[in-house]
Amino acid sequence: MSQQHPNRARLLISCRDKAGIVSAVSTFLHQHDANIVQSDQFSTDPQGGMFFMRIEFDLGTASPDFLRLKHEFHSLAAEMDLDWKMELAARKKRMAILVSKEDHCLLELLWRWRSGELQVDIPLIISNHPTNKQVVESYGIPFFHVPVTRETKQEAEQEAIQLLKQHDVDFIVLARYMQILSSTFVDSFPHRIINIHHSFLPAFIGANPYAKAFERGVKLIGATAHYVTDDLDEGPIIEQDVLRVNHRYSTQELRVAGRNVERIALARAVDWHTNDQVLVYGNKTVVF
Amino acid sequence: MSQQHPNRARLLISCRDKAGIVSAVSTFLHQHDANIVQSDQFSTDPQGGMFFMRIEFDLGTASPDFLRLKHEFHSLAAEMDLDWKMELAARKKRMAILVSKEDHCLLELLWRWRSGELQVDIPLIISNHPTNKQVVESYGIPFFHVPVTRETKQEAEQEAIQLLKQHDVDFIVLARYMQILSSTFVDSFPHRIINIHHSFLPAFIGANPYAKAFERGVKLIGATAHYVTDDLDEGPIIEQDVLRVNHRYSTQELRVAGRNVERIALARAVDWHTNDQVLVYGNKTVVF
Amino acid sequence: MSQQHPNRARLLISCRDKAGIVSAVSTFLHQHDANIVQSDQFSTDPQGGMFFMRIEFDLGTASPDFLRLKHEFHSLAAEMDLDWKMELAARKKRMAILVSKEDHCLLELLWRWRSGELQVDIPLIISNHPTNKQVVESYGIPFFHVPVTRETKQEAEQEAIQLLKQHDVDFIVLARYMQILSSTFVDSFPHRIINIHHSFLPAFIGANPYAKAFERGVKLIGATAHYVTDDLDEGPIIEQDVLRVNHRYSTQELRVAGRNVERIALARAVDWHTNDQVLVYGNKTVVF
Amino acid sequence: MSQQHPNRARLLISCRDKAGIVSAVSTFLHQHDANIVQSDQFSTDPQGGMFFMRIEFDLGTASPDFLRLKHEFHSLAAEMDLDWKMELAARKKRMAILVSKEDHCLLELLWRWRSGELQVDIPLIISNHPTNKQVVESYGIPFFHVPVTRETKQEAEQEAIQLLKQHDVDFIVLARYMQILSSTFVDSFPHRIINIHHSFLPAFIGANPYAKAFERGVKLIGATAHYVTDDLDEGPIIEQDVLRVNHRYSTQELRVAGRNVERIALARAVDWHTNDQVLVYGNKTVVF
Repeated sequence: MSQQHPNRARLLISCRDKAGIVSAVSTFLHQHDANIVQSDQFSTDPQGGMFFMRIEFDLGTASPDFLRLKHEFHSLAAEMDLDWKMELAARKKRMAILVSKEDHCLLELLWRWRSGELQVDIPLIISNHPTNKQVVESYGIPFFHVPVTRETKQEAEQEAIQLLKQHDVDFIVLARYMQILSSTFVDSFPHRIINIHHSFLPAFIGANPYAKAFERGVKLIGATAHYVTDDLDEGPIIEQDVLRVNHRYSTQELRVAGRNVERIALARAVDWHTNDQVLVYGNKTVVF
Repeated sequence: MSQQHPNRARLLISCRDKAGIVSAVSTFLHQHDANIVQSDQFSTDPQGGMFFMRIEFDLGTASPDFLRLKHEFHSLAAEMDLDWKMELAARKKRMAILVSKEDHCLLELLWRWRSGELQVDIPLIISNHPTNKQVVESYGIPFFHVPVTRETKQEAEQEAIQLLKQHDVDFIVLARYMQILSSTFVDSFPHRIINIHHSFLPAFIGANPYAKAFERGVKLIGATAHYVTDDLDEGPIIEQDVLRVNHRYSTQELRVAGRNVERIALARAVDWHTNDQVLVYGNKTVVF
Repeated sequence: MSQQHPNRARLLISCRDKAGIVSAVSTFLHQHDANIVQSDQFSTDPQGGMFFMRIEFDLGTASPDFLRLKHEFHSLAAEMDLDWKMELAARKKRMAILVSKEDHCLLELLWRWRSGELQVDIPLIISNHPTNKQVVESYGIPFFHVPVTRETKQEAEQEAIQLLKQHDVDFIVLARYMQILSSTFVDSFPHRIINIHHSFLPAFIGANPYAKAFERGVKLIGATAHYVTDDLDEGPIIEQDVLRVNHRYSTQELRVAGRNVERIALARAVDWHTNDQVLVYGNKTVVF
Repeated sequence: MSQQHPNRARLLISCRDKAGIVSAVSTFLHQHDANIVQSDQFSTDPQGGMFFMRIEFDLGTASPDFLRLKHEFHSLAAEMDLDWKMELAARKKRMAILVSKEDHCLLELLWRWRSGELQVDIPLIISNHPTNKQVVESYGIPFFHVPVTRETKQEAEQEAIQLLKQHDVDFIVLARYMQILSSTFVDSFPHRIINIHHSFLPAFIGANPYAKAFERGVKLIGATAHYVTDDLDEGPIIEQDVLRVNHRYSTQELRVAGRNVERIALARAVDWHTNDQVLVYGNKTVVF
């Protein structure tokens, strides 16, 4: 949702907490004529915990070009032992979408993309069903139908991985993709696969959460956007939201109502990921 | 929150769904000069499911007195095989509170009671700690300290049950009472004990939900008011609510923030129970 | 969102409150073998105020057909002086959409319509701009471009009214239609035009509410779906919702964030209208 | 809600945006062995707008004492032309409460204060009614009854101002104080008086907002905590919240339900003010 400045860049840092990081980094930027426009930081524990930082800055007229600035930051980073990433805001990430039959999350992302809310390129969309081919192509995006059966699951995954690598994607959104990914797949894109689970995790892990929610008689239903790890529905949570329901909702009505929470929670998570606002540590996220 | 009309009464009905219930009941009331001012109904399945109904009505000048009306309803109810309950709105339920050390839920209920929001009498408050004795007594309510140790748990429960029966309570609120009740206790007050669990059930069942929520890195914390059954944290849910949190919250800060959700969810559930708005079926509630 | 039963019907009643309405109506239905599956009522004041009722019922095997049932209800209604409406749930209302350039509300309605969430027919969409022609037609819906200039406003409105009448529409949704309708237009469709105003009314009436919200520094922005009357932004409110914002939002960012509240509030209001859940009285609504 | 570290301090800065502020300030702190544990900043416009910053830092073992650090910051601040404030987190602000008859906001603050959530001292509470004398004194806080009539309004205000100055208060909370303050009063405590208005401002400015909300038929009611200025209900908004209502709420029921939104919005605003999280610019706030 941020406005684009032509030379806006972002610096993300994770490291063990220590004295002088903010000073050293902000002085580096100042000396390179870069103007800090936003800065967030978080320490798990000021005494020896982890330190996370996200800085947005604008390159100035006397700044070196971005690549040189990035290059020059290497020595400071090495000296202070920082894990870091520096990105131009104008560089759009390449996002792939995996989807099955249900289209609400897919369409939400496509609409936000076309309206300019979501600053990404979408080089391809893969589905195990042909259902959404037409709508995807009406947006001018290549659609790949990669069917999955029990027997072909492994090959199908290999095909998907290859397509994703060929198209040089930065991250992958599972927009209601109803297949469990293998470790091989997940490990190929560490913390770069975002899933939307249709419950308020950790409640109702696994299949059919709306049926379980109906059984339990909950008064709110939820959705959880998270990074995918090898543990099903256990990855770092990026965003969650809920919706009030009542005894009148059948399982099917919970499912329909839940679509609205799913698409909004997913869209927010994708937006934050796109803007480099999410840092993972352990099994959690810092969202700046 | 409803306004008091001197002759306002409530009729609650549960039965197998069948044709003609609404007609029969509303005609009965009309013939007795009782004016229906609100009516809610719910069928789990119009073809042979369960039927639930709640009617608020005002006795008219030509109505029999309430007890006679109630008496005359018996034959209709028998004929149609209804489970039912008829109550004068002006008859305040007698509510006991069980509490341990934390006072936020206790105080919320006491404030609402004193301000007239909560239409109950509070004949006694029982605690396993003396902590809240003074504040309870400042409200003019008898406070009983019934300590519980591993060895005395059974006796202590018996003492509590006896106190509750002596004081003729209609229902019991566990306002952060940190003891698990035995089956004997629970069975003495079926669907008449309301607990507040400090998580969004079924997430984080059992002890230390805030520590678990911190570990899992959830983005919302919740609270659940439910009727107590023999299965810990598994009873019929009356109300749930949530609060947005983020990575900056320590376990302790989640605990503090969560207090506000706990007291509001509990207060709503108690209010609804007080107004006969909650019907239990299976392990769920209908809240009218 | 309700499931379709083939012979589900709805009865809506408004009248001065008086004794015996529920009894008379429910007995009428019972005698015609119609099974009440849901019923809501509301009295502004049990002593001589207004009474509103909505009943859903299923015609039984021994029921007369719907038209005969409706016909036979006339005499009861006359006797009790009821304003009423009886509709088959399966009869889809014919909804027209008026839209300008912004497409988020339009697309929300189209998605929900295609997914079966919104039970309407959409015979036509009219716009004062050609912008959304292609997307509308991709849904197989006729699109009419009726440009409006200061000089042609009256003629353009006449053209729109004629199109709407030719297509026999039941109600009209202004899905961000940036033209003020004349009294002539409004009076042609009393309480059958739903508008989405991009603020939490009555705050920020009139043009540019997001700019005004930015100026005022509010911490929540809202949207209001209401029936259109001759008084701009003063018609009966059907639904409102809000979204948390903060000092970081520019006017443009408020506008973008607000889209999500607008489309959800509008979609809910349209859904309720479609299901005959909204009754207007004075300048307010009862939403059952 | 933040945990107390013995040498935690806060630095707040407002100034025209210019290059190098973050670098200069963070380097100053680093050179004085102070460890930044949190930092937030906001620019209204990176090109020549206003710049706001809030830094939390811990004094280290090699740091000068707090007063000397503060003293040494003067020259940097002068050089860069900063408006600034530096406070020890452990220094509790002195908060006065002004209240009339309704006690829900008063009690919310007192409960949070006693539970340690609200880190303030409360040297006195002033009321134009004796109603809440007993409850205030039960918390061990001096209660001053300063009656206000049309004739004595000016004297009464003078008396209140004098009491507030004698007790050396840092800020004042109007916890449903039903008197309009004169310019003299307001100007004596600029941006240091927090009011809770019982509507979602700018909707329903002035008296009787719940009656107005009832008339207008809104579907959400709200509350607004804001700094008091000379323009009634027009001061900088700190926090707002809303609650869903429906056609069944009478004005009185809106009033009762609204209490819960009022006390929560007010408590949050007071908490943020207490932690130096609120900066005022123009007629708006930045809440870090």
